[in-house]
Amino acid sequence: MTRFALTVEFDGTPFMGLQRQDHGPTVQQAIEDAAHKVTGEHPILFSAGRTDSGVHALAMRCHLDIEKQIEPFRLSEALNAHLRPDPVAVIGCEVVPDDWHARFSCLGRAYVYRIANRRAPLTLEKNRAWHVARPLDAEAMHEAAQALVGLHDFTTFRSAHCQAASPVKSLDRLDVRREGDHILIEAEARSFLHHQVRSMVGTLSLVGLGQWRIEQVGEALAAADRSALGLNAPPEGLYFLRASYPED
Amino acid sequence: MTRFALTVEFDGTPFMGLQRQDHGPTVQQAIEDAAHKVTGEHPILFSAGRTDSGVHALAMRCHLDIEKQIEPFRLSEALNAHLRPDPVAVIGCEVVPDDWHARFSCLGRAYVYRIANRRAPLTLEKNRAWHVARPLDAEAMHEAAQALVGLHDFTTFRSAHCQAASPVKSLDRLDVRREGDHILIEAEARSFLHHQVRSMVGTLSLVGLGQWRIEQVGEALAAADRSALGLNAPPEGLYFLRASYPED
Repeated sequence: MTRFALTVEFDGTPFMGLQRQDHGPTVQQAIEDAAHKVTGEHPILFSAGRTDSGVHALAMRCHLDIEKQIEPFRLSEALNAHLRPDPVAVIGCEVVPDDWHARFSCLGRAYVYRIANRRAPLTLEKNRAWHVARPLDAEAMHEAAQALVGLHDFTTFRSAHCQAASPVKSLDRLDVRREGDHILIEAEARSFLHHQVRSMVGTLSLVGLGQWRIEQVGEALAAADRSALGLNAPPEGLYFLRASYPED
Repeated sequence: MTRFALTVEFDGTPFMGLQRQDHGPTVQQAIEDAAHKVTGEHPILFSAGRTDSGVHALAMRCHLDIEKQIEPFRLSEALNAHLRPDPVAVIGCEVVPDDWHARFSCLGRAYVYRIANRRAPLTLEKNRAWHVARPLDAEAMHEAAQALVGLHDFTTFRSAHCQAASPVKSLDRLDVRREGDHILIEAEARSFLHHQVRSMVGTLSLVGLGQWRIEQVGEALAAADRSALGLNAPPEGLYFLRASYPED
């Protein structure tokens, strides 16, 4: 048995999310099916993060165990051949020790959230960014975001369906910046609660629109109450950016 | 009658091109139909450039004449409302003098061509870039491109269907650069022949792959013969970037 670590890029639009579900196509199923076609085996895919329907990944890290003797480059080529025409691509593949785990060995996750802040509807960026038509104040959003950095009870920013044992998480970084018509929000933490990034972005957008005072974000956090949430931003702006491991 | 200049962004994937055709959807028809719904009139759209099926635009300039009294902002909002769900958006709209013409007043056109140069298939960039799996040498491509800059007979780089009166054109700029996994090619001229940018990019790609010597590009140009063409690059990497006018 050989354990392979995969780096995977995908367009989340046509999927019900990364993790296998009873109903609807998932990225996990697409990769597992491709791996079955390559090897005849039924490997299970483990990943650094779970993503919702419509959420994208630029470099998700995953692993699977394969009995068949195969070189990493050949495996990635064969997986990509069988993944067509699904918008999932293996962009990296390497052999890792048997105790390396895409989820449990992961020391940090990073996401980027992309807002297209302009009046006109989106064309080339449809399903690739959240379209916010009214002007956003990125500096106010960044200032408000700093209240969320650090060790906090993130109950306010957690989905009702979140399965994490505790709502207490340490957020390492939450940066908001404007690049032309776009607002980019980068979030880094050891791990995130379900919907945490989207909930933080949605709430910050209210500050950006001037509907919330900067201080209200910290107040919503302190409330530790889901009903204090401003808004959950839609999935199409969210990208899983990076997973980091001890060996990096 | 008021003449409105529009700045238009579109995803060319679902269209047969910009200009109206007998068969299949076009950007021109989409905008003319939207303008008809807004005004009850049948305005004709004129544009700075024509684009082929699958070619995109970041900022195409167009104009149309409307009898109905309407403010530019209201017109762009109404056009965008009626353009949904087509991936066409009016991102700018202004009143111009009656003798301003999107095509004939235009003093310069700029295109950018985007190559995704990596082994893995494309996911998020599908239909947004030309996928070239083997490594390209951008510096060699840039050097070879300089043979095309200036006043030349571009017969080699002209479609058999080109309707221009003369194959002689002045190419102002053709720059090739690498940004990570991408090769970006920017071309500027007063005007281009049909397929000229795609023909130049396709031929430069052969230099990038090491299949052609750098000097062969100038030799192909000097041949003034379509059969000397290396390759016509596919439409999905091409973006109409900018049109410039005397008042700019």
